[in-house]
Amino acid sequence: MIKVAINGYGTIGKRVADAVAAQPDMEIIGVSKTSVSAEAYIAKERGYPLYIADLGRKPAFEKAGLEVAGDVETMLKAADIIVDATPGGVGEKNRPVYEKLGKKAIFQGGEEHEVAGFSFNAHANYKEAMGRQFARVVSCNTTGLVRLITAMDRAFGVERVRAVMIRRAADPDDIQRGPVDAIVLNPVTIPSHHGPDVQTILPSVNIVTLAMIVPTTLMHMHSVQIDLKRETTREEALKVLENHSRIGIVRKATGIKSNAQLREYTQDLGRPRTDLWENGVFEESVAVLNGREFYCFQAIHQEADVVPENVDCIRAMMGTVKDPEESIRTTNKALGLVAIG
Amino acid sequence: MIKVAINGYGTIGKRVADAVAAQPDMEIIGVSKTSVSAEAYIAKERGYPLYIADLGRKPAFEKAGLEVAGDVETMLKAADIIVDATPGGVGEKNRPVYEKLGKKAIFQGGEEHEVAGFSFNAHANYKEAMGRQFARVVSCNTTGLVRLITAMDRAFGVERVRAVMIRRAADPDDIQRGPVDAIVLNPVTIPSHHGPDVQTILPSVNIVTLAMIVPTTLMHMHSVQIDLKRETTREEALKVLENHSRIGIVRKATGIKSNAQLREYTQDLGRPRTDLWENGVFEESVAVLNGREFYCFQAIHQEADVVPENVDCIRAMMGTVKDPEESIRTTNKALGLVAIG
Amino acid sequence: MIKVAINGYGTIGKRVADAVAAQPDMEIIGVSKTSVSAEAYIAKERGYPLYIADLGRKPAFEKAGLEVAGDVETMLKAADIIVDATPGGVGEKNRPVYEKLGKKAIFQGGEEHEVAGFSFNAHANYKEAMGRQFARVVSCNTTGLVRLITAMDRAFGVERVRAVMIRRAADPDDIQRGPVDAIVLNPVTIPSHHGPDVQTILPSVNIVTLAMIVPTTLMHMHSVQIDLKRETTREEALKVLENHSRIGIVRKATGIKSNAQLREYTQDLGRPRTDLWENGVFEESVAVLNGREFYCFQAIHQEADVVPENVDCIRAMMGTVKDPEESIRTTNKALGLVAIG
Amino acid sequence: MIKVAINGYGTIGKRVADAVAAQPDMEIIGVSKTSVSAEAYIAKERGYPLYIADLGRKPAFEKAGLEVAGDVETMLKAADIIVDATPGGVGEKNRPVYEKLGKKAIFQGGEEHEVAGFSFNAHANYKEAMGRQFARVVSCNTTGLVRLITAMDRAFGVERVRAVMIRRAADPDDIQRGPVDAIVLNPVTIPSHHGPDVQTILPSVNIVTLAMIVPTTLMHMHSVQIDLKRETTREEALKVLENHSRIGIVRKATGIKSNAQLREYTQDLGRPRTDLWENGVFEESVAVLNGREFYCFQAIHQEADVVPENVDCIRAMMGTVKDPEESIRTTNKALGLVAIG
Ligand SMILES: NC(=O)c1ccc[n+]([C@@H]2O[C@H](COP(=O)([O-])OP(=O)(O)OC[C@H]3O[C@@H](n4cnc5c(N)ncnc54)[C@H](O)[C@@H]3O)[C@@H](O)[C@H]2O)c1
Ligand SMILES: NC(=O)c1ccc[n+]([C@@H]2O[C@H](COP(=O)([O-])OP(=O)(O)OC[C@H]3O[C@@H](n4cnc5c(N)ncnc54)[C@H](O)[C@@H]3O)[C@@H](O)[C@H]2O)c1
Ligand SMILES: NC(=O)c1ccc[n+]([C@@H]2O[C@H](COP(=O)([O-])OP(=O)(O)OC[C@H]3O[C@@H](n4cnc5c(N)ncnc54)[C@H](O)[C@@H]3O)[C@@H](O)[C@H]2O)c1
Ligand SMILES: NC(=O)c1ccc[n+]([C@@H]2O[C@H](COP(=O)([O-])OP(=O)(O)OC[C@H]3O[C@@H](n4cnc5c(N)ncnc54)[C@H](O)[C@@H]3O)[C@@H](O)[C@H]2O)c1
Repeated sequence: MIKVAINGYGTIGKRVADAVAAQPDMEIIGVSKTSVSAEAYIAKERGYPLYIADLGRKPAFEKAGLEVAGDVETMLKAADIIVDATPGGVGEKNRPVYEKLGKKAIFQGGEEHEVAGFSFNAHANYKEAMGRQFARVVSCNTTGLVRLITAMDRAFGVERVRAVMIRRAADPDDIQRGPVDAIVLNPVTIPSHHGPDVQTILPSVNIVTLAMIVPTTLMHMHSVQIDLKRETTREEALKVLENHSRIGIVRKATGIKSNAQLREYTQDLGRPRTDLWENGVFEESVAVLNGREFYCFQAIHQEADVVPENVDCIRAMMGTVKDPEESIRTTNKALGLVAIG
Repeated sequence: MIKVAINGYGTIGKRVADAVAAQPDMEIIGVSKTSVSAEAYIAKERGYPLYIADLGRKPAFEKAGLEVAGDVETMLKAADIIVDATPGGVGEKNRPVYEKLGKKAIFQGGEEHEVAGFSFNAHANYKEAMGRQFARVVSCNTTGLVRLITAMDRAFGVERVRAVMIRRAADPDDIQRGPVDAIVLNPVTIPSHHGPDVQTILPSVNIVTLAMIVPTTLMHMHSVQIDLKRETTREEALKVLENHSRIGIVRKATGIKSNAQLREYTQDLGRPRTDLWENGVFEESVAVLNGREFYCFQAIHQEADVVPENVDCIRAMMGTVKDPEESIRTTNKALGLVAIG
Repeated sequence: MIKVAINGYGTIGKRVADAVAAQPDMEIIGVSKTSVSAEAYIAKERGYPLYIADLGRKPAFEKAGLEVAGDVETMLKAADIIVDATPGGVGEKNRPVYEKLGKKAIFQGGEEHEVAGFSFNAHANYKEAMGRQFARVVSCNTTGLVRLITAMDRAFGVERVRAVMIRRAADPDDIQRGPVDAIVLNPVTIPSHHGPDVQTILPSVNIVTLAMIVPTTLMHMHSVQIDLKRETTREEALKVLENHSRIGIVRKATGIKSNAQLREYTQDLGRPRTDLWENGVFEESVAVLNGREFYCFQAIHQEADVVPENVDCIRAMMGTVKDPEESIRTTNKALGLVAIG
Repeated sequence: MIKVAINGYGTIGKRVADAVAAQPDMEIIGVSKTSVSAEAYIAKERGYPLYIADLGRKPAFEKAGLEVAGDVETMLKAADIIVDATPGGVGEKNRPVYEKLGKKAIFQGGEEHEVAGFSFNAHANYKEAMGRQFARVVSCNTTGLVRLITAMDRAFGVERVRAVMIRRAADPDDIQRGPVDAIVLNPVTIPSHHGPDVQTILPSVNIVTLAMIVPTTLMHMHSVQIDLKRETTREEALKVLENHSRIGIVRKATGIKSNAQLREYTQDLGRPRTDLWENGVFEESVAVLNGREFYCFQAIHQEADVVPENVDCIRAMMGTVKDPEESIRTTNKALGLVAIG
């Protein structure tokens, strides 16, 4: 059993914890919180040992009925590998600690590529992660793009990618961040930084991205145009997507036309935390124009799509499973991830 | 086993179906849909026989991979009792059909009191429902108010109730209804109709309600002031709420200050569809001023709080369980409803 | 003086009325309303004679303190030209009336091209409107695209246009329409109908458009990619936009990064109804990649950009001014339209 | 002419500047900004001399085409009185500067009462401000409550006030603050701090307030219940409101049911920045129940209602006008404030 510690038990951390705990070859040996909160009660409810950075706060936790297993360093020492899911930028500060302890660690998309020196996506570059001490699971948006581009590239060759990303403003439980009634260019400049982020995994892809933020919480929405190297048809393109284990098809017959209805669907399906771990490509949107211009809309559940990637990244870095497809299959099965559609 | 049919498998119907299916003494013999949709696939996934009003649409369902068990009338005939969860106003049109077939039926809060002639809440008037052919489970807002008022009345006597209800604009998957950036007085007139609706269950309560609609989807929020007949303290009032099996306490230590964070919490708890079946009273908000003025904020999950009430209403109307508390306990246990807090 | 009647004094109609009234060569001879409302009081406040379709409602208007000048047909007869700003689809029903009366009429973007048989944009095809009985001022989105494409085409030649349009959900005072928390694909299919709508004015342009609706009220936001025929630089492209009398530049120095801040700016400038009549191109977003790929974000104030186009369309159809630039200059001056930036 | 400086030319400051400039007995001698922004261009457009705190930034302003008149201290010295409209908490830090310079200053509602030692509302306590060096114009919500309570108290006597305030999340141009889809209790505790804030002006009033934040930008909405000392009727209560020069009546005939439609109305009326300077009481909501319970909904435009109060506060502190009604009349006339309704 691979011993996994979750440093930063928040939106991503709590999901990765449950995903890891569900795997046959992994176990959660601890999760960390900085202060008493609803999520600390969830850790308790799940039976994950709770570690805190500042033991001075232990009484506050105990007064709230939350047992503290020890300080974060104790947790890190007990782990084979650490999933760092602290807020963007904190991972960079944590890296020296992991180095000092000689521990493997996975960072999230809020960190720069350089923090880990290697960026990961299971379908794109699993094997390159093998044996590394550090890796970064790219952000939700980048993960969604890389899955799609890799699939299309293997099938038809990718000439150039032009993508517009309509991003959710805040996660559903984040009551601080806005905007309330605005479309925010983020960044105003074109191209956005998402293209270069894709290139940390797919260095030679010709990609231009643009991004805006809108007042919603549920999922990002990507409008993607890919000029293909080889001509194809809508049917063939759709087949490639259907065959991908982390791309789901939002079927026309469901009547789903928005991320909100899609969320209702995953909720009705009983997905834990309503998570859409796969890209949600809208069947009706898939188009191939002029023989080579592929288009689609895809919904990207920001809180979820990176979760299975973290699990695979653990296996790759630990070197316990050599075959990407085997890891992906194991991860998906343990999660109950059968792509929708 | 009580044979239950769900006429109208939508937001409420799909929840009641799962709640009924979880009970030891009930089974779902069928659910009805009017057209192919995401929810029809969920019915299939759950294994509920799918009935449709217009058999002419059968080919459309079958083309979409959805087996049709028959027409709605066939379903109604096979049931001991029907939960009518069609859109507001449709229940009234369905009543003559239920009468003709001599079937018991439960209507929802979108119907007028007169459609059933009797309005139901498990804690308030379970016994009065026994043996009836028709009953109406009152709306989500009324259910939430009746639970709270009944509890306070039994403990301290209720002199008068003044409540302001901040209502969600649309259910999360409803992409039609707004507003987007407005606070809508609904109605503009004071008092609103919610007070009289409470009086369909508690006829003698002195109540004035006001209501607004705001651009959110998750839960209603009630600001409630109850002038009590007997003096009490904050601690005693809180104890009454804590002891109620369908009132939960949103503890200060969780840091939850909004319906969004509360939804995240029920989601993290693994509640099906994130449902908060109980009233969510915010611990910090509970106040008793001047000895007799009780105040609190309570979150009401519009999609969920009526669900256990429907289950109890079935038992009461079928007469199989005489003791309200026994039914409530059975329902809650089968649902996994242990009030938060 | 050209006698102008406004049939449908709503969001667009009330703006066109004020714009017409401000022109040196036009006057408003009447506006029509169907029922008593806030806008009827505004018509009174402006001194526009108020006509109503159904004289049976006259007492209701008079009881509300609103004088009724007569029925709509009386108004239409007294006009040289009618601006039909009724809700989408009503214009089509009104056309036979205008034909019968032998009156010129302008329809809005909610009508099909075929209703008028000619679609109008001042910079693109003013002269073709001359002498016509019917014309349609294209929708806000189409107007914004046509202005930009025409400008780029004249300067550099346009090879192909790819645009993603993020549309506001509802006008600010529309409290019915949503969504509240969703990104809605509208349509789900790619391409959207906006490309063909542009082609009603620019028939030979190669254009693919995609559209989504997001929960905001203020302005649409376009992400536009134009592959040019001739190479150019960012500076030259920006100069072309700066020189256009209905394209404004949202300067970097203003710090404006969203449609909300842009609206605050036009509000601070004292623009009537905060109207941004021009396209709002974000300076920082203007990019020319690979020599020929032009990119920009532009904000389109749905309520406003078609207003000056209606004014010019009146002049063109009446044939009183032959030179497009002269009409545009007159319109802009009377409105106080000096493009921002 | 009273020489007025505006320290902090933002949401409130820019409005007070225009209101002051419109008065016959006042002039703006300068406004201050901390950095280049859209509002700095507006100051230039209005012709207000622009002062900056840090002269080191002068080149940045000049590069942006903005002339700098000098540093803030120079501006303060040249003024008879300063309106401090800096962000909440900054005023407190500025007070010692004003003291050192021996200047009169008005603070805004973001400061504690103690910063000025005196809190102001024109209708409630104009005379008490006379001759003072410091005063605080209370917040938008408090201003709205004080106007209403004072009016009802003078007419009927006020026994107790219970108010629920539904607050806008962010000003329209604020793209940072949320929430996006949540009702936030702010504070969770009952009562909120707004009651005590009212008591800084009306110390003996019995008041309990509750407050929530919802995802809108336009106006706050108050639901107010006032138990009166003397019995009255709806008609008499309405008459009192109609006769108040800063309370407007949103008439039933306008069909306005929300703050969004009300904003459209003030926009159509041509109010500068669409400002609703008066309380917007909804005619249909006005109710008197049981002879003594007065109820109403009132819309409070957060950006606007304090503006005329600042102007009156200047006159009171300068001692140039002794009669409150005379100042209020002068202010209103100069602004064009004729209460709606
Ligand atoms: N939320 C998303 O949608 C999303 C999607 C993909 C990637 N990411 C990335 O995942 C990472 C985590 O984001 P998140 O949204 O889960 O954040 P979060 O704020 O929800 O959770 C962060 C957790 O880290 C803990 N924490 C805070 N400061 C800490 C510190 N100094 N040391 C240790 N723990 C600390 C907090 O208690 C919290 O539980 C970021 O890099 C982010 O960019 C987030
Ligand atoms: N949604 C809520 O938050 C909520 C809360 C409490 C009570 N209610 C009440 O519950 C009832 C159902 O509301 P809902 O929100 O679940 O509605 P819904 O629209 O989500 O679902 C209604 C279902 O009825 C079906 N239906 C529609 N027309 C029908 C017809 N003519 N005959 C048979 N079936 C038909 C639809 O297919 C749909 O599945 C209403 O009375 C409503 O007022 C709703
Ligand atoms: N609102 C926008 O953002 C926008 C932008 C560009 C174009 N348009 C187009 O402009 C047209 C008008 O749209 P709008 O938003 O101003 O609509 P609106 O609903 O705001 O106003 C329509 C007006 O027409 C009146 N009306 C309704 N039915 C009528 C009838 N049968 N006969 C006569 N008058 C009637 C109403 O009283 C109302 O005043 C539509 O074609 C629309 O597609 C609207
Ligand atoms: N915005 C509202 O709705 C509202 C309503 C009533 C009262 N108020 C109160 O009015 C005051 C101002 O609020 P606002 O909303 O106008 O703020 P704002 O942020 O819109 O404007 C503040 C201005 O002060 C300037 N500024 C910032 N820091 C400064 C400093 N250190 N020194 C000098 N100037 C500085 C900024 O450039 C900005 O122009 C606060 O006390 C606030 O609580 C605001």
